[in-house]
Amino acid sequence: MDPFFEIPLVRDGAPRNRARSFAAQLKAAILDGKLRPGTQLPPTRKAPTFFGVSRNTAAAIYDELLSAGYVVMRQGSGTYVADTLPNIAPRPKSEIDHSSKFRFNEFWIRPDVTAAMGFWRDSPTTHKNPVIDFRPALVDSRLFPFDVFRRVSSQQLRALERKPAAFKSPQGNQGNHSLRNAIVEHIALTRAVVCDIDDVIVTSGAQQAFDLLARVLVTPNETAVAIEDPGYPPMRVAFAAAGARVIPVAVDDEGLIVEKIPADVRVICLSPSHQFPLGLTTSMRRRKALVAFARANNAVIVEDDYDGEFRYAGGAMEALRTAGAADVVFYVGTFSKCMLPSLRTGFIVAPDWAIKTLVAAKNCMDWHCPTPMQIGIAGFIAEGHLARHVRKLRQIYRERRHVLLKNLKQHLGKWIEPLPSFYGTHVAAVTRGTLDCDRIAASLAEKNIKIHSLSRYFLGEKSLSGFVFGYGAVTSDQIEDGIHAMRKTIASVSD
Amino acid sequence: MDPFFEIPLVRDGAPRNRARSFAAQLKAAILDGKLRPGTQLPPTRKAPTFFGVSRNTAAAIYDELLSAGYVVMRQGSGTYVADTLPNIAPRPKSEIDHSSKFRFNEFWIRPDVTAAMGFWRDSPTTHKNPVIDFRPALVDSRLFPFDVFRRVSSQQLRALERKPAAFKSPQGNQGNHSLRNAIVEHIALTRAVVCDIDDVIVTSGAQQAFDLLARVLVTPNETAVAIEDPGYPPMRVAFAAAGARVIPVAVDDEGLIVEKIPADVRVICLSPSHQFPLGLTTSMRRRKALVAFARANNAVIVEDDYDGEFRYAGGAMEALRTAGAADVVFYVGTFSKCMLPSLRTGFIVAPDWAIKTLVAAKNCMDWHCPTPMQIGIAGFIAEGHLARHVRKLRQIYRERRHVLLKNLKQHLGKWIEPLPSFYGTHVAAVTRGTLDCDRIAASLAEKNIKIHSLSRYFLGEKSLSGFVFGYGAVTSDQIEDGIHAMRKTIASVSD
Repeated sequence: MDPFFEIPLVRDGAPRNRARSFAAQLKAAILDGKLRPGTQLPPTRKAPTFFGVSRNTAAAIYDELLSAGYVVMRQGSGTYVADTLPNIAPRPKSEIDHSSKFRFNEFWIRPDVTAAMGFWRDSPTTHKNPVIDFRPALVDSRLFPFDVFRRVSSQQLRALERKPAAFKSPQGNQGNHSLRNAIVEHIALTRAVVCDIDDVIVTSGAQQAFDLLARVLVTPNETAVAIEDPGYPPMRVAFAAAGARVIPVAVDDEGLIVEKIPADVRVICLSPSHQFPLGLTTSMRRRKALVAFARANNAVIVEDDYDGEFRYAGGAMEALRTAGAADVVFYVGTFSKCMLPSLRTGFIVAPDWAIKTLVAAKNCMDWHCPTPMQIGIAGFIAEGHLARHVRKLRQIYRERRHVLLKNLKQHLGKWIEPLPSFYGTHVAAVTRGTLDCDRIAASLAEKNIKIHSLSRYFLGEKSLSGFVFGYGAVTSDQIEDGIHAMRKTIASVSD
Repeated sequence: MDPFFEIPLVRDGAPRNRARSFAAQLKAAILDGKLRPGTQLPPTRKAPTFFGVSRNTAAAIYDELLSAGYVVMRQGSGTYVADTLPNIAPRPKSEIDHSSKFRFNEFWIRPDVTAAMGFWRDSPTTHKNPVIDFRPALVDSRLFPFDVFRRVSSQQLRALERKPAAFKSPQGNQGNHSLRNAIVEHIALTRAVVCDIDDVIVTSGAQQAFDLLARVLVTPNETAVAIEDPGYPPMRVAFAAAGARVIPVAVDDEGLIVEKIPADVRVICLSPSHQFPLGLTTSMRRRKALVAFARANNAVIVEDDYDGEFRYAGGAMEALRTAGAADVVFYVGTFSKCMLPSLRTGFIVAPDWAIKTLVAAKNCMDWHCPTPMQIGIAGFIAEGHLARHVRKLRQIYRERRHVLLKNLKQHLGKWIEPLPSFYGTHVAAVTRGTLDCDRIAASLAEKNIKIHSLSRYFLGEKSLSGFVFGYGAVTSDQIEDGIHAMRKTIASVSD
């Protein structure tokens, strides 16, 4: 009896997937011993009868089996199951618990590190009610012009195809020339940052920018790095991972308190336009003091400008990295907020004296960012789509911000007070009296309202309590509903 | 006189770029003082006359200028150049030479590090004659089915668009689910590596895989890491950057000499299928000894399987990371060779006990790889295009390999002898007598023939001399021409 009739070949999936599915099933049958060594496979011309696939498809399947060592070809005779099979067994769990024997770099298993990097990880929610998500720095991808991005990306890929063949990254480790060019224009217009394309390094989002800067700027177990407190946990982890001595420095209503930075600090990390998470803008006085500190102490500044494109009225100020501070400021920007975080594209504008060294490290980390992503974003900017999208988002966010501030005042004004914030997509509010914000946030989570208590952003003393209200991913209606629910929850716990 | 007539607005570029160009020119005119504070800008309805752009375009330009602080809007009156301008000046070189004051992490400025990472950097060539490029691990991008990849990527992006909005990486830091699924199938068929999608982490090419492994597996200034010598310099740098004590271990015709690995080594890096650069396959005896060493010494193995998809007749062997060694082997694969290096996509198959820790580090490094790249490659694999492309390349490479070996024997057999090699896209050949290979390679470079002398791959004692012949980016005709030229050059120096 033909052994093939005993193999339950399942014809599932689309026709185009059938070949792979059959190959996998034949492989399994060979490993299981259902097809014994030496068994001849049906000739490919009989494949339509045996397998219900074309002769060409069968040839492709046999070729895969051959190259993986499952079958052998005998000249003029046919295809046979190999005598010596690949040494494959169903995946076992590790036979030895090597984890108890091998010692990891302990940094990566510290609970504070894994907690900080799990920062954006979603907490489980019941999906009976839609979630109202006030977490900061979220982006509503429904607003993104996918169709335009798809078209531009395709055009750019087509242009790439016509370029001469070469292994080397056509654009170099520093980033695609056309993208760096587009970045220079984009930040000149939206952030008044004047720089040259030679000053720009493309990174895989702001997170890789922090990681890259940390590796180059920090001498392990030596360099002291001052970080705003409260601040952005994943940035702290990048510097700690590089071996920095991380020193939390408090923030007041003028921003980072420069006078509190110890003199031996060599790197200062902050978000001066829109302090994360408090939302404050660092005052001009503090900015001047900061640059003076850096120059006097042989230090440098890392400016995280994650949402500076969205600027509203009031006390808005340009980036810290103006021409006047180009010698000491590393400016980090990202397309996560103004486009999509899943594109994983950001950049550093670095002092000219540091570029070469940063590029060496980027090279070691991953050579460069994927070319199709870089040219797609470059085209999107060059054709004016980013400027248009930012204008659109700015209008939407302005409206949401207005609704949020109005409702905060009207319904929660008794308990919390918003801090002034002129940028981005979140506003923080601090408690007027005592209020257990962690408990309130936990209680709201049960009602599918996600909001962060300020406490989770502190490394040192929790000098403030309150909430962060992100409005990147909530509609105006959701903002109203969310604040109403908060009012009830707060009223129930504070009475 | 209207000040606008004194501004030489240049109408260059495509219409769609004109708005940006005009905005930049107006900005420059304001900064230069040609448009003085308080000057009223023409009303947008007059824009066609003044600027030759539509009213809408002019509104967009003004909006950019407004949001960047160059102009102010006065209600019911119009748009005026702002009194207080953004503090922008033409980009100066750093006013202070901060580089002499700031201390980098010295690792990144060491000459050996920058040299090793400049490994693939192109040397200048005269372009009178076409270049014959024998450097190893090159890929001929002309063979890549760009049209298919473009279509699949577009389809995948369209599907992504329809997914619900969320900030969080829809796929998690470990990599897109559909890509990991496709990887599991791909390596099962081509490399007989059996694993589960939970064992796979997607990385930005093999280089990020090495960097990621180095950060997690190495305790800085403590962990000893054995690396094949000769070996792959960028991998060595990744481990050294993480603070490893890098220990070069010699290779013989059976591969890495396991008996020479010091007992305190905790990580062993090698390319067992196709040793880089010698091309040898590690013998079964050595493989067993290696796994036994790892188990006995609480060590792990990093297997670099960069071109295992291209397997020819003879002594080919499956991957070291079979089910039987799943507890100690970290398998690193890449789509750089079988697709394109500029896609920057690779992966690690890790022991189950290590996944969580690797994901924490990946998270810190850049969250995850760009979603559009991941889903594009996943679709390309799932629809069978990768298998087809690999089959096509395998045929082409087989032919080139044949031509290369024939010509090496016929024309250079007097001086050099090819080492056995059953995989990939390069063959190494060692000298029979004494031959100054560095000098010959330099001399050939002047004739636009690029070839690497083996010497550049050694970290310790240069125990072999010879050349590496890569055939990824040369046609059969070029191979013949290149070998002929080498014969002449070698004959001229060795007589």
